[in-house]
Amino acid sequence: MARVSQEHLDARRRQILTGAARCFARNGFHGTSMQDVLKEVGLSAGAVYRYFAGKEDLIAAIADEAFRSIRSAFEEAAELTTPPTPDVLLGRVLRGVFEGQMYGMERRACAALIVQVWAETLRNDQLARTLEDGYAGMRAAWSKLVDAYRAAGIMHSDVPADDVARTMIATAQGFMAQEALFGGVEPAVLENGLRGLMSMDQSEIS
Amino acid sequence: MARVSQEHLDARRRQILTGAARCFARNGFHGTSMQDVLKEVGLSAGAVYRYFAGKEDLIAAIADEAFRSIRSAFEEAAELTTPPTPDVLLGRVLRGVFEGQMYGMERRACAALIVQVWAETLRNDQLARTLEDGYAGMRAAWSKLVDAYRAAGIMHSDVPADDVARTMIATAQGFMAQEALFGGVEPAVLENGLRGLMSMDQSEIS
Repeated sequence: MARVSQEHLDARRRQILTGAARCFARNGFHGTSMQDVLKEVGLSAGAVYRYFAGKEDLIAAIADEAFRSIRSAFEEAAELTTPPTPDVLLGRVLRGVFEGQMYGMERRACAALIVQVWAETLRNDQLARTLEDGYAGMRAAWSKLVDAYRAAGIMHSDVPADDVARTMIATAQGFMAQEALFGGVEPAVLENGLRGLMSMDQSEIS
Repeated sequence: MARVSQEHLDARRRQILTGAARCFARNGFHGTSMQDVLKEVGLSAGAVYRYFAGKEDLIAAIADEAFRSIRSAFEEAAELTTPPTPDVLLGRVLRGVFEGQMYGMERRACAALIVQVWAETLRNDQLARTLEDGYAGMRAAWSKLVDAYRAAGIMHSDVPADDVARTMIATAQGFMAQEALFGGVEPAVLENGLRGLMSMDQSEIS
């Protein structure tokens, strides 16, 4: 396939996903029909269905892209000799998500879409597979980071790395839930909160 | 009103909520009708509608009770001279939620219901108010705990207490999201993960 043609296909795909994300953000996943998406992107049904079989395909593609970009941010961080601490790294990744990677959606609309995807996933096998793959990738990336923290001597080694990985992912998920439900949750809230937790004096705790 | 009568009313109310929770856990919030709830509890429409005007009322009552019991667990902890650290406390509260406080629902069904409530809250003002009140109460309770950690000399004081409060709530919310989506998230995962985070050596970080 000629290069210009592949570029054209990619651009068209992105155009459709951007329009779909706008629709989902505005009216929710359930409140959006394929007709709404066609109208939003200004393309014929034939042009859109060439890329995506339906709403579930669109949301799965959006989720998949989000997972990929977040995962690669964590993987890059794990390559550093002294990786950024969880507060710094999560703050950076969340800002990245909200600054343009999510098809230009507002922060709260983006968070609301994520919560809707979770609810939809409970009854949709295709989405469940996409989320399971994405979650497994994030867990693996965070586990590598935990190994890097230990190699750098900044985290004790008496805790399963995977448990730390799942807990870090949980803070990001809870951040999304709070932003969707209540709004006004700046990434700095999570950065500060993690710093507070990391400051807890273990010698006083045991 | 005579005491036995109030007891009867309370027992009836609990009977209805327990049946409703079972229906929601089995078929989801959207997949449950008031008819399903009537059938499950074996009461007439008149008997049930005396207590609850509809599905939204039922789910709001269930959410409200969950918030109350969780909040009081945190408030009790904050009264102690040296309050339990976040890992211990969150583990204890999560076990409490799953062991009986949630109308006998299985852990994953309970987590799935919570995620469904979040999604429903995005388009339901009554639920939004219930969740906002519950969240405000949890934030206040956690902020008192952070003050207690500082008074006991086990947490640095350079971070807004409310940010730590919101981050701790986020870990619990993310725990619920993961359990709903993937299952198999024991409270010990969060306990261990928080311990790992708390073990990060600040002197190496700055």
